[in-house]
Amino acid sequence: MDFQTVASTRRTIRRFEQREVPETELRHLIDMARYSSCASNKQPLRYLVIREKELVRQIFETTRWAGLVAPRRTPQWGVDAPLCFIAVTAPENAGTFIHADAGAAIQSMELAAWERKLGCCWFASFDPEKVQELTLLPAGYKVLYLVAVGFPAEEPVTENAENGDVAYYLDENDVLHVPKLSADEITRWL
Amino acid sequence: MDFQTVASTRRTIRRFEQREVPETELRHLIDMARYSSCASNKQPLRYLVIREKELVRQIFETTRWAGLVAPRRTPQWGVDAPLCFIAVTAPENAGTFIHADAGAAIQSMELAAWERKLGCCWFASFDPEKVQELTLLPAGYKVLYLVAVGFPAEEPVTENAENGDVAYYLDENDVLHVPKLSADEITRWL
Repeated sequence: MDFQTVASTRRTIRRFEQREVPETELRHLIDMARYSSCASNKQPLRYLVIREKELVRQIFETTRWAGLVAPRRTPQWGVDAPLCFIAVTAPENAGTFIHADAGAAIQSMELAAWERKLGCCWFASFDPEKVQELTLLPAGYKVLYLVAVGFPAEEPVTENAENGDVAYYLDENDVLHVPKLSADEITRWL
Repeated sequence: MDFQTVASTRRTIRRFEQREVPETELRHLIDMARYSSCASNKQPLRYLVIREKELVRQIFETTRWAGLVAPRRTPQWGVDAPLCFIAVTAPENAGTFIHADAGAAIQSMELAAWERKLGCCWFASFDPEKVQELTLLPAGYKVLYLVAVGFPAEEPVTENAENGDVAYYLDENDVLHVPKLSADEITRWL
């Protein structure tokens, strides 16, 4: 799929089919992440791919899902919850720019997933200490973000934001709508 | 070009042809950036596309280029310097996660550029106060990053890092080599 189509159709997914993502696909996501831009080519990010069922369940329980469409888009374990998380970790003493490195890498993972008919949900809202403990993350490292990965069981749509209103919502058919500002609204030309 | 090819062949570019990037192409980069993941869909990032020649020159003078290959990969104004910058800005009171939003957006811009035969160089090293002053950025906003955009006048290559050595270098033919860690080296499976 060409890049433009991947980037413009990709959406965050919060409902997942209950089948596992093949290891080759997960490896591909990391492979694409490792090519992403990073400060001074230092590549400090490390990834934990979490598939062991009980561990996934415990990590799932620490995540907080989109507030504006709760509880309808908060998945239920064993019904439509993700079966895999990728934890993005970094040295504790990494500076603020590590979040930019992580953002670039996660964006690449999400696009790579979408090209392979997979969907992702990127979390900053979870209990990092609990995830650190559950994954036996070595001292000196911290969990920056979680990314749920799975086969999508919903089809969210993007639409143009009206009057700058970017609040996402579920319609009467339970479809998630995600309003986006136009390029003109967010750009100044000099 | 399919996403995988774009993502795996894209490289940072530090030498540029001296011809201008069409406005339609620059608009396309912002268009792809606006679809990227962002926290709670709030879309706080704003973009300045800087093409006015004297302004580009002044901003270019505030940028610091890759230290390990200086001065050979520090472009010269009027010879191989970029003719356009995109400044990525955000509200001053945005939290740490704004850097993740910016990283995701810039990664999308870089990939979109590469698909269109353009190259980018992403800067965290520049003088943000000077750029703020030059661009008349409104109070309450700050410049997070700069992205140089142009037609590539070099062809850097990626290679596998040996023994974890990620230092990039120029070879005897003046080709930039960028070592990347393998997926296995940066992943733990649970």
